[in-house]
Amino acid sequence: MNITEKILSRASGKKEVHPGEIIEADIDLAMSHDGTSPPTIKTFHNVAQKVWDPEKIVIVFDHNIPANNIGSAEFQKVAKKFAKEQGITNLYTHGEGICHQVLPERGYIKPGKVIVGADSHTCTYGAFGAFATGMGATDLAMVYATGKTWFMVPEAFKVTVNGELGKFVSAKDVVLNAAGEIGSSGATYKSLEFHGETIDSMHPAGRMTICNMAIEMGAKNGIMEPNKKTLEYLKNIGITDFEVVRSDKDAVYEKEYSFDVNDLEPQISCPHDVDNVKGISNVKGVSIDQALIGSCTNGRLEDLREAAEVLNGRNVHEDVRLLVIPASANIYKQALKEGLIETFIDAGAIVCNPGCGPCLGAHMGVIGSDEVCVSTTNRNFMGRMGDPESYLYLANPAVVAYSAVLGEISNPQDL
Amino acid sequence: MNITEKILSRASGKKEVHPGEIIEADIDLAMSHDGTSPPTIKTFHNVAQKVWDPEKIVIVFDHNIPANNIGSAEFQKVAKKFAKEQGITNLYTHGEGICHQVLPERGYIKPGKVIVGADSHTCTYGAFGAFATGMGATDLAMVYATGKTWFMVPEAFKVTVNGELGKFVSAKDVVLNAAGEIGSSGATYKSLEFHGETIDSMHPAGRMTICNMAIEMGAKNGIMEPNKKTLEYLKNIGITDFEVVRSDKDAVYEKEYSFDVNDLEPQISCPHDVDNVKGISNVKGVSIDQALIGSCTNGRLEDLREAAEVLNGRNVHEDVRLLVIPASANIYKQALKEGLIETFIDAGAIVCNPGCGPCLGAHMGVIGSDEVCVSTTNRNFMGRMGDPESYLYLANPAVVAYSAVLGEISNPQDL
Repeated sequence: MNITEKILSRASGKKEVHPGEIIEADIDLAMSHDGTSPPTIKTFHNVAQKVWDPEKIVIVFDHNIPANNIGSAEFQKVAKKFAKEQGITNLYTHGEGICHQVLPERGYIKPGKVIVGADSHTCTYGAFGAFATGMGATDLAMVYATGKTWFMVPEAFKVTVNGELGKFVSAKDVVLNAAGEIGSSGATYKSLEFHGETIDSMHPAGRMTICNMAIEMGAKNGIMEPNKKTLEYLKNIGITDFEVVRSDKDAVYEKEYSFDVNDLEPQISCPHDVDNVKGISNVKGVSIDQALIGSCTNGRLEDLREAAEVLNGRNVHEDVRLLVIPASANIYKQALKEGLIETFIDAGAIVCNPGCGPCLGAHMGVIGSDEVCVSTTNRNFMGRMGDPESYLYLANPAVVAYSAVLGEISNPQDL
Repeated sequence: MNITEKILSRASGKKEVHPGEIIEADIDLAMSHDGTSPPTIKTFHNVAQKVWDPEKIVIVFDHNIPANNIGSAEFQKVAKKFAKEQGITNLYTHGEGICHQVLPERGYIKPGKVIVGADSHTCTYGAFGAFATGMGATDLAMVYATGKTWFMVPEAFKVTVNGELGKFVSAKDVVLNAAGEIGSSGATYKSLEFHGETIDSMHPAGRMTICNMAIEMGAKNGIMEPNKKTLEYLKNIGITDFEVVRSDKDAVYEKEYSFDVNDLEPQISCPHDVDNVKGISNVKGVSIDQALIGSCTNGRLEDLREAAEVLNGRNVHEDVRLLVIPASANIYKQALKEGLIETFIDAGAIVCNPGCGPCLGAHMGVIGSDEVCVSTTNRNFMGRMGDPESYLYLANPAVVAYSAVLGEISNPQDL
């Protein structure tokens, strides 16, 4: 079996599971955020009185924090009231950060676990060797009530990445490159299992970037066997009570992809589809109005360091607003200690409070018609960040930083 | 003549002006922000092609920065396009801060000048001995076109404040106390001229806090003769080309108020009127959901220092979200250097990017029904920060900080 099958067989109490099989799995951790908690709670109240296990539920406010309108404020009230009633103390309502950063850094994510969340980028946690997938609020309500859900065991694609990434080329480029090849529906309901020396040598931040975007290829989950750096990360935050699950040598995959990233240039996902990916040399020179560094994809310390390296001693172009949004309060604080925040301010960036920010066009950097944004986020769907006639390019943090300086999409490798 | 009359006589080319007289004055500086620029520009285009003097116009984006929705984004596009067309280079669109902080700290505000802005708290600049008043976008459009506007010379009230402020009692308490006495329409269209040893010994930040809230008593302007600290402040930022204007000893005032602040306790303006002011001992214990430190009233370095002194080593109450929003990027940076931002983060506050934030209920901390916020801002009108059934208490930064810690309105003097 592969890693996903092994985890799902354990969670469903079966010796073996097979692709296509419908199973009922015990859930180890369930998550909802400020946007999805209220609909989850509404459905929950139709079926149950008490959640199955308050300690296995985490609620994070990140999508509209602080509340951007009365509706958001009311949504947050609903979730806070529910948490209090149900005894859910894993509650992050004070801008602690984006759920997909808060959960790993606070030790909720462990290898081998089954984790579901009412957010499509829940697949991020696959970086730790967990089976993690997003689901709708209605499905999550049933998890909150019973601690179980059903899955069809996915077929798996094996994606092997070998080679050493060049300067200012990073995990984002690896996953954009893969998305361009596999396509935005090329892995629908598949388990994307990442292997190879590039993945094995990568820090958890980069691995999270890659698993985060598995959903952008339609995948049910993205997953990686925990590498040395990931196990060190877990040890450093005091997480040791888990068993590492690895795919069998003879595991069968429906399809295999192999990427050599030795000569990979920075990749750009162009409007309006994530898989509309081009090498930066084909996109350079596109004039921009906004640049965004942040999100559950690329708002981590490693990302901020890359951006700061480019921005240090440089100024953001006068026609560009550069937004920097650390993925969590802990990252913000660490960036502050390292002097990165000062570098951003000195360069003329706007540093916003940790959260999802404008990634989903909800607030804090919505763009107008004909405006162009280059962003480290994960989706460039039409109207994602604002007006349907705006244009959104996805890139790595160094590319976004250098583009902000020059006022047009630019390759930091030219520095 | 008093200081306001002297400034207006100079600006209207008259030897003397008298209360009630209608004059046409030359404008030394005019300002609009992201919210008021588009309506100003729309009217402007009906009457003129070119602004009277691009160097005397300043445009600051502060109300909805970064843009909170598509409408805000479109508004910002209008103002940026206009500035480019008209050669207005005094343009602050990158989150430099709140107009009423950006203009003073960047040297636009000088004693003796006539300054208008399409924002009601333009009266803030009176702290520097300038005549400064807010106006509507239509009136400002005529200023943009001609460099002139008409005023009725206001009658003046002399407000004398003597005494030494106690620990954790500050300018905000002085002006709330005055507002409680004078009433929210008690000084309608008057010039509120502040005198006394308390004012004379106050740093510019506190003086700005007081003049900022002159409009909350209905005043046409608030004004103070520049004191030593104010002149030092101006010298430090390289501003020396001005003449200080002072009221004549025999200047006549319609009314005089006198306040002794030696025993003043922190003052709280209670819902839903700014002049519904009570000593904190009568308000203590009111449970809160949100606390806000920021705004053109109290988002300055001195305010952040007071708040940090209270928050240092303490934690924000689990049921409260504390928002800290420095009034400008420069203040944010200075606060960062002084370790204040770290103190706020450690305490569990959400530090947002400089701007007006939720003061006007537009975004970044809107409150829901039945929610209570204690805030350093300037207005607690019904629904100002969100739902019409929310409740807003105004206080000084130390009070807001300590209330955030205890989860209810609290007096930091009890520390």
